[in-house]
Amino acid sequence: MRHSQRTDDQLRPVTIETGVNRYAEGSCLITFGHTKVLVTASVDESIPGWMRGKGQGWVTAEYGMLPRATHTRGRREAAAGKQSGRTQEIQRLIGRSLRAVVDLKALGERQVVLDCDVIQADGGTRTASITGAWVAMASALNYLRDEGVLKSDPILDQVAAVSCGICNGVPVLDLDYEEDSEAEADSNFVLTGAGQIVEVQATGEKRGFSRAEFDRLFSLAEIGCTELFALQKAALAAVKR
Amino acid sequence: MRHSQRTDDQLRPVTIETGVNRYAEGSCLITFGHTKVLVTASVDESIPGWMRGKGQGWVTAEYGMLPRATHTRGRREAAAGKQSGRTQEIQRLIGRSLRAVVDLKALGERQVVLDCDVIQADGGTRTASITGAWVAMASALNYLRDEGVLKSDPILDQVAAVSCGICNGVPVLDLDYEEDSEAEADSNFVLTGAGQIVEVQATGEKRGFSRAEFDRLFSLAEIGCTELFALQKAALAAVKR
Amino acid sequence: MRHSQRTDDQLRPVTIETGVNRYAEGSCLITFGHTKVLVTASVDESIPGWMRGKGQGWVTAEYGMLPRATHTRGRREAAAGKQSGRTQEIQRLIGRSLRAVVDLKALGERQVVLDCDVIQADGGTRTASITGAWVAMASALNYLRDEGVLKSDPILDQVAAVSCGICNGVPVLDLDYEEDSEAEADSNFVLTGAGQIVEVQATGEKRGFSRAEFDRLFSLAEIGCTELFALQKAALAAVKR
Amino acid sequence: MRHSQRTDDQLRPVTIETGVNRYAEGSCLITFGHTKVLVTASVDESIPGWMRGKGQGWVTAEYGMLPRATHTRGRREAAAGKQSGRTQEIQRLIGRSLRAVVDLKALGERQVVLDCDVIQADGGTRTASITGAWVAMASALNYLRDEGVLKSDPILDQVAAVSCGICNGVPVLDLDYEEDSEAEADSNFVLTGAGQIVEVQATGEKRGFSRAEFDRLFSLAEIGCTELFALQKAALAAVKR
Amino acid sequence: MRHSQRTDDQLRPVTIETGVNRYAEGSCLITFGHTKVLVTASVDESIPGWMRGKGQGWVTAEYGMLPRATHTRGRREAAAGKQSGRTQEIQRLIGRSLRAVVDLKALGERQVVLDCDVIQADGGTRTASITGAWVAMASALNYLRDEGVLKSDPILDQVAAVSCGICNGVPVLDLDYEEDSEAEADSNFVLTGAGQIVEVQATGEKRGFSRAEFDRLFSLAEIGCTELFALQKAALAAVKR
Amino acid sequence: MRHSQRTDDQLRPVTIETGVNRYAEGSCLITFGHTKVLVTASVDESIPGWMRGKGQGWVTAEYGMLPRATHTRGRREAAAGKQSGRTQEIQRLIGRSLRAVVDLKALGERQVVLDCDVIQADGGTRTASITGAWVAMASALNYLRDEGVLKSDPILDQVAAVSCGICNGVPVLDLDYEEDSEAEADSNFVLTGAGQIVEVQATGEKRGFSRAEFDRLFSLAEIGCTELFALQKAALAAVKR
Repeated sequence: MRHSQRTDDQLRPVTIETGVNRYAEGSCLITFGHTKVLVTASVDESIPGWMRGKGQGWVTAEYGMLPRATHTRGRREAAAGKQSGRTQEIQRLIGRSLRAVVDLKALGERQVVLDCDVIQADGGTRTASITGAWVAMASALNYLRDEGVLKSDPILDQVAAVSCGICNGVPVLDLDYEEDSEAEADSNFVLTGAGQIVEVQATGEKRGFSRAEFDRLFSLAEIGCTELFALQKAALAAVKR
Repeated sequence: MRHSQRTDDQLRPVTIETGVNRYAEGSCLITFGHTKVLVTASVDESIPGWMRGKGQGWVTAEYGMLPRATHTRGRREAAAGKQSGRTQEIQRLIGRSLRAVVDLKALGERQVVLDCDVIQADGGTRTASITGAWVAMASALNYLRDEGVLKSDPILDQVAAVSCGICNGVPVLDLDYEEDSEAEADSNFVLTGAGQIVEVQATGEKRGFSRAEFDRLFSLAEIGCTELFALQKAALAAVKR
Repeated sequence: MRHSQRTDDQLRPVTIETGVNRYAEGSCLITFGHTKVLVTASVDESIPGWMRGKGQGWVTAEYGMLPRATHTRGRREAAAGKQSGRTQEIQRLIGRSLRAVVDLKALGERQVVLDCDVIQADGGTRTASITGAWVAMASALNYLRDEGVLKSDPILDQVAAVSCGICNGVPVLDLDYEEDSEAEADSNFVLTGAGQIVEVQATGEKRGFSRAEFDRLFSLAEIGCTELFALQKAALAAVKR
Repeated sequence: MRHSQRTDDQLRPVTIETGVNRYAEGSCLITFGHTKVLVTASVDESIPGWMRGKGQGWVTAEYGMLPRATHTRGRREAAAGKQSGRTQEIQRLIGRSLRAVVDLKALGERQVVLDCDVIQADGGTRTASITGAWVAMASALNYLRDEGVLKSDPILDQVAAVSCGICNGVPVLDLDYEEDSEAEADSNFVLTGAGQIVEVQATGEKRGFSRAEFDRLFSLAEIGCTELFALQKAALAAVKR
Repeated sequence: MRHSQRTDDQLRPVTIETGVNRYAEGSCLITFGHTKVLVTASVDESIPGWMRGKGQGWVTAEYGMLPRATHTRGRREAAAGKQSGRTQEIQRLIGRSLRAVVDLKALGERQVVLDCDVIQADGGTRTASITGAWVAMASALNYLRDEGVLKSDPILDQVAAVSCGICNGVPVLDLDYEEDSEAEADSNFVLTGAGQIVEVQATGEKRGFSRAEFDRLFSLAEIGCTELFALQKAALAAVKR
Repeated sequence: MRHSQRTDDQLRPVTIETGVNRYAEGSCLITFGHTKVLVTASVDESIPGWMRGKGQGWVTAEYGMLPRATHTRGRREAAAGKQSGRTQEIQRLIGRSLRAVVDLKALGERQVVLDCDVIQADGGTRTASITGAWVAMASALNYLRDEGVLKSDPILDQVAAVSCGICNGVPVLDLDYEEDSEAEADSNFVLTGAGQIVEVQATGEKRGFSRAEFDRLFSLAEIGCTELFALQKAALAAVKR
């Protein structure tokens, strides 16, 4: 039995609250158990120089963690003067994941910037970020359609992400920090609403693991993402203007 | 009349919610109208090298603003690779203000780090940060006393801060962003519970201003801080362990 | 009695020598006792991009301290790779102070850069910088008028600055380093020739201080600035071309 | 048919030349077709402070690309003043991959640094780096055993890596640059000699892809790594002292 | 007798292999004994902004050393976040030396970037870089002439460089690392095919040295460069397209 | 005839004023015509870690230029966030030159830091810096002997520097900025009082130059340094305590 009393294929309680920032075109506060991520989607009508004149837009992401989001205080990256390799790796992943479900031509020459800031961390901050970023982005693009800025919907599909890992030899879904730090293997799956793979990352932490174990992690991720897609839809439907 | 219908000496609605971070020794979410600042107080038992062996502790602060805390998205300082002059100026002010009401010897050889992160900005982020930081710090130090780590209370007094400015020729209390960007003069007062001055900063933005006008700003600040002291006490009393 | 035998309301000997740099449009070497600051005013006909097309100019300042300006050698900021928070705070203050007395429209689309470099430091470097910067700037703008580049005088008023503090319980004017490091409270006042406030900064260093004490500091600053205005005028009148 | 006339499950010609640096404890030049990576393994008897006294060692990696390793010259990272997110991501991957097959306790309190410098790039630089790094590391550790510094062999298994992707709808092994830039999906597999997974990274570039497609990529990677393991063994056997 | 059995005026074995990079317009691997430098010449049709519209081109150089090019591993400059003073000094020297023999007008509005990367270092890396850079540059410019991009040859003369030093009181040619670290004086001479001086740098390391000793170093350099010019010509003649 | 009416072997007026900084152990303001450099020598009793326990000291230099030392304002290096390659090259040269005439063992385990800050630049800033740095250093070490800190004099000889160049085909001594920017060749000679070479740097700017021309530059430098040695002695003799 997991220390949290969850079954192997059970997500932590997930909540998605939209409209949490009065300035952003889209925003949400997403929680996976004790993990809390504030996501804003900002629409920027001026795109970077290298993108201009191509008749298409761009989606990018930035990720940050408040210094005391974690058990012990970490160093503030702005004070350190640079983003860690881990931060850059995560924000690149978030950006790729979201772009995978957006028609950049239909978006037009504008940029959507997704800021994912971790308010409190208990494992799964990157998967919560991706899952929440889709809601914030969809909310922002719906707003642009309501305003008549966009003619069609650039969103091609949903995208969500969840972690899986092997703890005490057992593949389990949605690791919290305690499980994550003990896991023999750790993985993140980013899947589309249609069940396609956007990104898979799996790492043996203490040992290599077998292809059979990997297949089980994959199946758990499919279970988890199916639940997340339903929660995303419900959150988006509840957005008020 | 002010655009918010407030009288000249009226604060915006202020709320202080404590216990908002499950790891930090003390924390609060403070709001001054639409301005929202998340403050955590982290106790670090290892102090910087230059402080060791002096039989006393230290209180310091860091300040940050989420990129979309503002009307239009600002650049993330961690991505820019450095903290702006404005950020450094504010976090130095917060640190000085808090140290003014702490007996560093009674604190012992440990450090309290106050992280003030602006979730949403509508003017007055530095004054809300100082006011909230006192609550988070007091909460953390009370916790240390409950745990028996501290024998006595290192806190000598309360400290709170509020902005005042001259708008359309009239001195008013607690400027929001709209007022702040139009103000002829802008000031921040940091006062103690006993009514002593910790810090005064006043700047003519569009014109110089007279000593009589300055005196009125000072009186408004005294009114505002008196209210803030009561709210701080109430928030601290409501902390649950 | 002060260690320097000065009365409470007495400035240190102040000298302002103009024309100390053969390339700069305006320059001076200002001394407040042992504090020596070299100020140059450089006129740049190309303004930053964000300023263009607005039909007005800009005034900005940079501040630096030679490594051995102080009792013990400090680290060179260029070698450290960044300007300290203190440096940035001071140069922002100098820029704000000077802009307060310039009609930026009358200046036209050009920039004046004031470089304030501390050759020797004995307290009051920022107030000497502001006071000297006005002379260097006025000298440069007079030169532009003599050359026919400017039709009218963009300078609206004089601006000068002085520090005051509470030492051994007594408010005194123009602190030197020894007084500054012992002071219970420290303040800087930036005032215009017309007696208006441009900037006030006051800080309790070892204790809070009362509004009555603050009022006395203010009065001392008015005495000091009155003397500085006369010295600025005399220095400017002595400029030779 | 692939533009290179290779079959779907065919590697490019792979060569591994050892002993290419007269100072390094281990080294090799590995080529995957036109991709050339120079790898050195440096043994450092002084480990970082945070590692000391734990009775174990560390293996880490750094990755770089010469500016003209690519079709058009890229910016030198040392001149840019920082390593890109991509570089950091790759060097973290190399380090994790190698540590997965080393008994850090048997290594003792010393560090092995693997420098992987890309001399020429035509796709697959990270997989060539990992595959070559194992040879350089093994060569260095054999040397330490020959010298009597190490009593036992800290290497637990081989590790190799290969990329796979979907090009024109067909899963293929070991993409070159031309294939990589056109691929619909791209993946990297890091496997051990025993067939265990160390790391899997798979990304949909232009579209999501199905689990069946993923499974085929996985099988191709197993084929490729099997060949690489044989080449590693042969290269290591040929090392001369 | 020198530890390498060389006579005082004898170079180490020098080899120059061209065409070592399949993308660069010109390239070579040059060795001076155990010192190996990989040089690429990249032609960039877009020149820096400050150069445009002047009807002439530019030649510049960058220099780097792989971390384990040396006896003990050095820090990677990209990881350190900056190029050392030594690196900048060397790359400025290489750029100046090459520009001295190029007609920048005949080059047209394009830039040649010479990347000199030290694969293995045993003294004389800057002189090998300059000598090899001329071959790589000449090879690239010949290619541009073959392609019809250039009408005339912008190369005015050859340029080569060699080090000389005083070891145990005796002036000797082309120091290796062991000699270099013991030398009483160290110098680098950059000469043209016509025997003109492009650059001379001579430094007393342990003691000053006399003008007579300097003259002998100069004569040795003339001997060394004469040999290098012949080797450059042979290498250039052997370039295949 | 030179534009300044000087003969070919004539220095500009040179002045050396000592005791210009009340805190530094040694200091001087040196002028070569319109070039003015402020030099301080700071004695630091704590040497860098890598130097400790060797029973000897160190001499090092830092160089800077005030932004408006030049005809048009240059960027402040502290604001730019790094020292230019030129700055680093110069300060390394100054340090090497001074160490050449100091017995580091006799200095004991302490460091002398020479800060050379250019107040106004008209060519020859590095040679003025070296020449002045010797005076400041000698003054500081004499002070240490007077205080009884040093038993013997660590200074072995004088060192001075001067530039020479070829202008309009004629070798001339001590170039000012106008000459320097037009010169066909430029050189700096650092010589000891005994006539030994410490450093020679000579560069063809617009063309290579012959060995005969170089020899004439060398002779001019010997003439110039002879005069500088006399001026150094006189300045040092005039130091008051």
